[in-house]
Amino acid sequence: MGQRFGSADREGEGEGQAARLVPVRPIAPRSMTKPTLALIALSLAAPALANTPPPRPTVEQAADAARDHDMHAWDFVEGITTEVGPRQAGTEAEARARAWAMQWLMARGFANVADEPFEMRTWVPGDVHKAEIVSPFAQPLVVQPLGGSASTGEAGITAEVVMFRTVDDLRAAPEGSLKGKIAYISHSMTRTQDGSQYGFAGPARWVGASIARDKGAVATVIKSIGTDQHRNPHTGGTTFRTADGGADVGRAVPIPAGALSLPDAANLERMFARADGRPIMLKLTLTPRDLGMTRSGNVVGEIVGRNPALPPVLLACHIDSWWNAPGAFDDGAGCAIIAAAARNVATTGQPLRTIRVLMAGAEEVGLHGSVAYSKAHIDEPIAVGLESDFGADRIWRFDSNFRESNPGLHKKIASAVARFGVSSGTDVATGGADLNVVRDQKGALIDLQQDGTRYFDLHHTPDDTLDKIDLAQLRQNVAVWTQVVGILANEENAILTGGPIPSAPPIMQGK
Amino acid sequence: MGQRFGSADREGEGEGQAARLVPVRPIAPRSMTKPTLALIALSLAAPALANTPPPRPTVEQAADAARDHDMHAWDFVEGITTEVGPRQAGTEAEARARAWAMQWLMARGFANVADEPFEMRTWVPGDVHKAEIVSPFAQPLVVQPLGGSASTGEAGITAEVVMFRTVDDLRAAPEGSLKGKIAYISHSMTRTQDGSQYGFAGPARWVGASIARDKGAVATVIKSIGTDQHRNPHTGGTTFRTADGGADVGRAVPIPAGALSLPDAANLERMFARADGRPIMLKLTLTPRDLGMTRSGNVVGEIVGRNPALPPVLLACHIDSWWNAPGAFDDGAGCAIIAAAARNVATTGQPLRTIRVLMAGAEEVGLHGSVAYSKAHIDEPIAVGLESDFGADRIWRFDSNFRESNPGLHKKIASAVARFGVSSGTDVATGGADLNVVRDQKGALIDLQQDGTRYFDLHHTPDDTLDKIDLAQLRQNVAVWTQVVGILANEENAILTGGPIPSAPPIMQGK
Repeated sequence: MGQRFGSADREGEGEGQAARLVPVRPIAPRSMTKPTLALIALSLAAPALANTPPPRPTVEQAADAARDHDMHAWDFVEGITTEVGPRQAGTEAEARARAWAMQWLMARGFANVADEPFEMRTWVPGDVHKAEIVSPFAQPLVVQPLGGSASTGEAGITAEVVMFRTVDDLRAAPEGSLKGKIAYISHSMTRTQDGSQYGFAGPARWVGASIARDKGAVATVIKSIGTDQHRNPHTGGTTFRTADGGADVGRAVPIPAGALSLPDAANLERMFARADGRPIMLKLTLTPRDLGMTRSGNVVGEIVGRNPALPPVLLACHIDSWWNAPGAFDDGAGCAIIAAAARNVATTGQPLRTIRVLMAGAEEVGLHGSVAYSKAHIDEPIAVGLESDFGADRIWRFDSNFRESNPGLHKKIASAVARFGVSSGTDVATGGADLNVVRDQKGALIDLQQDGTRYFDLHHTPDDTLDKIDLAQLRQNVAVWTQVVGILANEENAILTGGPIPSAPPIMQGK
Repeated sequence: MGQRFGSADREGEGEGQAARLVPVRPIAPRSMTKPTLALIALSLAAPALANTPPPRPTVEQAADAARDHDMHAWDFVEGITTEVGPRQAGTEAEARARAWAMQWLMARGFANVADEPFEMRTWVPGDVHKAEIVSPFAQPLVVQPLGGSASTGEAGITAEVVMFRTVDDLRAAPEGSLKGKIAYISHSMTRTQDGSQYGFAGPARWVGASIARDKGAVATVIKSIGTDQHRNPHTGGTTFRTADGGADVGRAVPIPAGALSLPDAANLERMFARADGRPIMLKLTLTPRDLGMTRSGNVVGEIVGRNPALPPVLLACHIDSWWNAPGAFDDGAGCAIIAAAARNVATTGQPLRTIRVLMAGAEEVGLHGSVAYSKAHIDEPIAVGLESDFGADRIWRFDSNFRESNPGLHKKIASAVARFGVSSGTDVATGGADLNVVRDQKGALIDLQQDGTRYFDLHHTPDDTLDKIDLAQLRQNVAVWTQVVGILANEENAILTGGPIPSAPPIMQGK
């Protein structure tokens, strides 16, 4: 696998190579000591071998080159979706994804590549996912289980469906009123550039099943939290509260919970309109399983800086996906973008600060990797954190949490990314799901906001496949990241945030 | 069910009611004698009960009204997709669809509504449809069986995949070269307004599995014959030839045959590019079953003309769908369009000729209904036949097979539909799949060509759902059909075609 990744046909596309780069063979994980002062080779087949080394590009040139012809991000996301595919947290497939990503990073000269393991409770979807209207309008509906769903057993559950237009309507239902019933929860969700409708519609998935259970429901089905009209349900985690209001997976009692595709949800709602009060009887068969504790892990790797004593710049994404798709948008693209950007910055010369990539494990099922990383590294200060986990469409806004405390740096970055169509935002950056360590340290954060207009057409569905990635927009992401990381990794001063760190944004709840 | 279909909120939308219409209760199928001279009531709750009857619209007015606010076609397709859903030929679900359609026709005053039964050999898809790459890049792919596929058994078949870029490449493979292998057949297919790419790409499905079997393959998977990028494979029939070149289902030996979604096919092709010659091993599990002979049927109904001795105008569609979708485009919409148009013409006054609707059974799996109808009715001349079976998007061209033999009528129709954006074509109409009786009689045919640009995004996939129907375009169809059928049903003279009747078009092969 290794040699072909660095093959000449994917290299030498215009970016100059750093003059002092020396080709090295990839080294096994953990065998490289840290910090290393040797500058890391970025390619196994680079023009650096020529007698007259090509000129080293500036950060600006590297960013422009990425916009025009980056192929590294594409190679990552094309590779992981083709060679690994779906990689549900805590499973053997996720372990293969970690090994694959480490190999990719090492083949491109990242240092200190490692898999930092942690244990987690692992849920898997099982094989049978069926929903069938039994009466009055017998027909199958397309359903997938929500992460954390209980099993119905292979015999399934047949019960009357009670429809709620919103999760608030469900909240208002009398105690005990759902005894023996299946709750169906609808919502309205529209496409938005900033993805903010996820916060509006998401609670139907995040907490709907738990509320329904508390009112006596034997199962829950929701209208998928999504904006497309394809028969590919949107899965995602649902959280069951314990009797004392906690969310301890080990103590909370789940019920079967599934998501219908939007066309199927619309069909079910039309059935209510046509049934004239006759009960809608649904047979639901979902067979997820709890595997108990298994191992997951965080993949890390570094472009080591000239002064390793300075806190590093942390670039985050997540390596796991749901079982139902190869996870091109979520989050193969994010890992591709951060890895390509870190590599591009290295071509401009060894940066002042170390650039660390964190490809977190088990994000989808509860941010386990983010939590584990913070726990393990809380005492190692991070200069600034950034995450890519919102697909592969273009970045349209730059936000930080140091706009007031460090206006010079904020303006410098804003000015540098404007040529890529990125505006300077006034929101306070809150960081992505895998940046717990930065939030826990009350550190500096940057959000590079991506266009989310079609994100929830694909999010957590089988349709999250490579063909959805627009190469031009993927490259714009790499360009912006290259520019921003290039500035940050060469920033001499500490970045003071000056203000309180906000809590995690709604988009991270129930991931 | 019956009463609500004729409810006031869906009637009285501007079309005047024929003055002599008398409300009647729906009558059970076959209990109405034929021909009846009493004009059939078209609604159970019509303004015809008022003392001063509203003016009767002209055909032109009825067509314009349909374009602006027809709800009858929508009611049909919304109803059959919601209350019946998928209706695989020869199954209980198809029988429910026939009963539903008959009820709908009777509730709107169609006469001589009947279910004309026939026997057919019935294939059903079974429950397990799995494809898994075993090595070197283990991951699941999304597959559905092709109609006529054999079962792999629940244990599945694991074998090396051999890739063919086209069905012609497969044809060129040496005899015996696929022994023990799974043949994968790709193709390129693009969106076209006239749907002509189906004839180009379709053979991979129609005959690919049979050719592969003859070269020793143990199974076949094809890239779906479609143009979308969703993980919903396109099924459809495949035909296995007997040793003597025939296509007798009872004698031909099938092999397991499935279709991958286009994203999965692309993934498989990328695996070949990355495998560096390592074999791609696929485990395929498909469990279709042959139910032997079961009953299907053709639903018929009439708007009886003033002179029932004249040959009728035949409007055709098919009532069955594949198992994997509610069949909104294929062909709920077609039946909706023809039924709504026949009803609209009746509101203009009793037509000269009888208008007969034929909702054929078991079209998808081999045109069984069309063949049975021709066999039963070959001695009853048809004046002219038209079919709607290409979705619900707008009609853009009118073709006939009497443009030269009856230029006056051709021009009259062309002139009348131009205001709906329909041009006059010079192709010779060949009729739809369910018009065997007209072709067998060498009779007159009209093709109202629909925009097929997105038809093969949806065709034979789970995504063939109601939400895909654009109400404005559906209404344009009803308007054009109302206009055309209104002219034909009042045509006094026989329509001479003058020329030979072409054989069935490629689009019908392998349906």
